[in-house]
Amino acid sequence: MTDRDTRHRNSMQKLKTHVDERIAAANEQRGLLLVFTGNGKGKTTAAWGTVTRALGYGYRVGVVQFIKGQWECGERERLAEDPNLEVAIMATGFTWETQNRESDTRACREVWQQAERLLRDPDVYLVVLDEITYMLKFGYLDIATVERALRERPAEQTVIVTGRNAHRELIDMADTVTEMRDVKHAFDAGIQARRGIDY
Amino acid sequence: MTDRDTRHRNSMQKLKTHVDERIAAANEQRGLLLVFTGNGKGKTTAAWGTVTRALGYGYRVGVVQFIKGQWECGERERLAEDPNLEVAIMATGFTWETQNRESDTRACREVWQQAERLLRDPDVYLVVLDEITYMLKFGYLDIATVERALRERPAEQTVIVTGRNAHRELIDMADTVTEMRDVKHAFDAGIQARRGIDY
Repeated sequence: MTDRDTRHRNSMQKLKTHVDERIAAANEQRGLLLVFTGNGKGKTTAAWGTVTRALGYGYRVGVVQFIKGQWECGERERLAEDPNLEVAIMATGFTWETQNRESDTRACREVWQQAERLLRDPDVYLVVLDEITYMLKFGYLDIATVERALRERPAEQTVIVTGRNAHRELIDMADTVTEMRDVKHAFDAGIQARRGIDY
Repeated sequence: MTDRDTRHRNSMQKLKTHVDERIAAANEQRGLLLVFTGNGKGKTTAAWGTVTRALGYGYRVGVVQFIKGQWECGERERLAEDPNLEVAIMATGFTWETQNRESDTRACREVWQQAERLLRDPDVYLVVLDEITYMLKFGYLDIATVERALRERPAEQTVIVTGRNAHRELIDMADTVTEMRDVKHAFDAGIQARRGIDY
């Protein structure tokens, strides 16, 4: 064995010990609150990746989409026939297309009722509240209502919240928070959004 | 209309104009190189979310998994029957489990050949090189080889690279880079990795 091999082996052994210790220390089992926030690409995409994963084990999943109603969406198409997946979509689409505060608030409250129903259902293993942070920001929903529904949900249920500028209250409640930081983005270089990749 | 409604409408109109201008300015159409890096949760998950999306439109997709070979993986199960998806998995699993530099290097080179084949195939719309950054870090693969294969790939092909500490060369080449920043993680609070969510 060369010196390099020995060093590599020792360094890998140390890493393995560290990982094993951390795995042994993690002994709580329950549903999680995950927040994907930040300005970068990948928030909704990571949520759909988790949806695919949970469906892969046969779990029931509910996705509530708060602002992408009018967009084409490949992942929704791909999974649409799955009997374990339920998708509720806010009727109006992007709010800067409609610019009507009253009708947007009404549409938001309607789809939030679907969310509340999913957040009460112990048979639903994963609930995605996609882009809900904008509803809070625009004042269509209040944080206290959302917080209460999250706190009172079944213990085994995992929830993923996505959107920029997640509220401090959501960050504090969450078990796992990832900030998708925009290091660079093709759009800024004049490259068009791409079917099957960006939407 | 109240003052608040008017303000909201004006602010949304401004946002819409800004977005419309940006969409008009983006006029280049081609495959992208996306990098999901950083220490936070969501890199591989966002890649699988994009895979699901691309499959939703009927595109062909290749996924090469460089270090998660021995792990259970719900998303792979969910999509396994899709004739448009091809998955190549490195045989050894996490390298700190094996700690053998020589056999890991061999396993890495074998699976890289699958990657090279996919990166030459103009019928493959999306290629995911999952966790390849560790192969570069450990020296199992060299960056020049990877760079060349990426540069010579078909113009319409999108590639997603995932893993911590992405090489400067990859960041420079990439069209879109998101750093998944770990704000907090359930594992650090002693909560177990969860089936259907974390794996």
